[in-house]
Amino acid sequence: MILEKNAAASVPIHELMTRRWSPRAYDAAKPVTRAQLASLLEAARWAPSCNGVEPWRFLVWDRTQDAAGFERAFDCLTESNKRWVKHAPLLLLSIASADPLGGGRPNRYSQYDTGMASMSLVLQAVALGLIAHQMAGYDADRARATFGIPADCMPMAMIAVGHQASPDVLDEETRKKELAPRARKPLAERFFEGRWGEPVRI
Amino acid sequence: MILEKNAAASVPIHELMTRRWSPRAYDAAKPVTRAQLASLLEAARWAPSCNGVEPWRFLVWDRTQDAAGFERAFDCLTESNKRWVKHAPLLLLSIASADPLGGGRPNRYSQYDTGMASMSLVLQAVALGLIAHQMAGYDADRARATFGIPADCMPMAMIAVGHQASPDVLDEETRKKELAPRARKPLAERFFEGRWGEPVRI
Repeated sequence: MILEKNAAASVPIHELMTRRWSPRAYDAAKPVTRAQLASLLEAARWAPSCNGVEPWRFLVWDRTQDAAGFERAFDCLTESNKRWVKHAPLLLLSIASADPLGGGRPNRYSQYDTGMASMSLVLQAVALGLIAHQMAGYDADRARATFGIPADCMPMAMIAVGHQASPDVLDEETRKKELAPRARKPLAERFFEGRWGEPVRI
Repeated sequence: MILEKNAAASVPIHELMTRRWSPRAYDAAKPVTRAQLASLLEAARWAPSCNGVEPWRFLVWDRTQDAAGFERAFDCLTESNKRWVKHAPLLLLSIASADPLGGGRPNRYSQYDTGMASMSLVLQAVALGLIAHQMAGYDADRARATFGIPADCMPMAMIAVGHQASPDVLDEETRKKELAPRARKPLAERFFEGRWGEPVRI
């Protein structure tokens, strides 16, 4: 790791989770290999899902395989994301499908399960020595139209994956974000015990 | 591990992901310690979220600390889940809150991000040598009323956590599920390249 921003965890957690963060400085000279891509997708594939319907879809754009396709995905990003994603070799889009549960019942776990698959993918990136950064900053309607995403599927996060570079490759504004410390809300604001609002007693 | 059901991954993925599955056979004699609980929650706490709003909430019921509270959560489960959760020492409920993004914008990533936090929690359980099993089979309205969950928060998954026991502790029907092989859909059905429906070329 060129720049580590390990989680300041108050108790030990697994190093995959400690080491994961969302860097912006990508090395434009180092592609993600197809073997690495296979491993990223395989990790997502084995995530759990309600009734085992696997309601996620992932769209992949690999700059080394299809530069024009990558550009089309890149063009969906906001300007502030384009500034740093321009160096990333791989883009993915996570998508939540309305795949029904058994018996045709509506599936209210589609986005939740897709988040679980994406988390697996991102942690696998850490395991491979890669970096990954998920983004909401893109034009979902444009992605839908450009790539033929069906109406009952919801585009969720764009995910940049690649090798880390020095923060020096970034413009000044983005570099500031890259170097800012990470933080999380106190445990008591998010984790309750026994009933709503009662801080967990840890 | 008493019963391993490692992911039959087609390419190597990190062992945390390989080893994770959703067992039903819990050891009623072995509690989850408070230090282990702290570690589970800390892993969830450091998950990524859109705009850093951390839109998840987790409710915890620890049988060793509050048997009556645990029973109230247990009573929300379906009959088929009660059959095996009766041996689990710890229950959690993941909840997606409508916490707005910056500038008060609606947050369409609430369930997705909550799924990421839950995945972190479940993988931390694996790291601790524990087992975890997420369930949709519970009465969310009852949980909402019983535990005071606000209207703008969506109960997602009940999560049983504990130590693994032999499948012999299970009734016959549940044991069959426990021993059934794991499977996932072919990569090409969920992972596309370049545009929707085009199988990834791996």
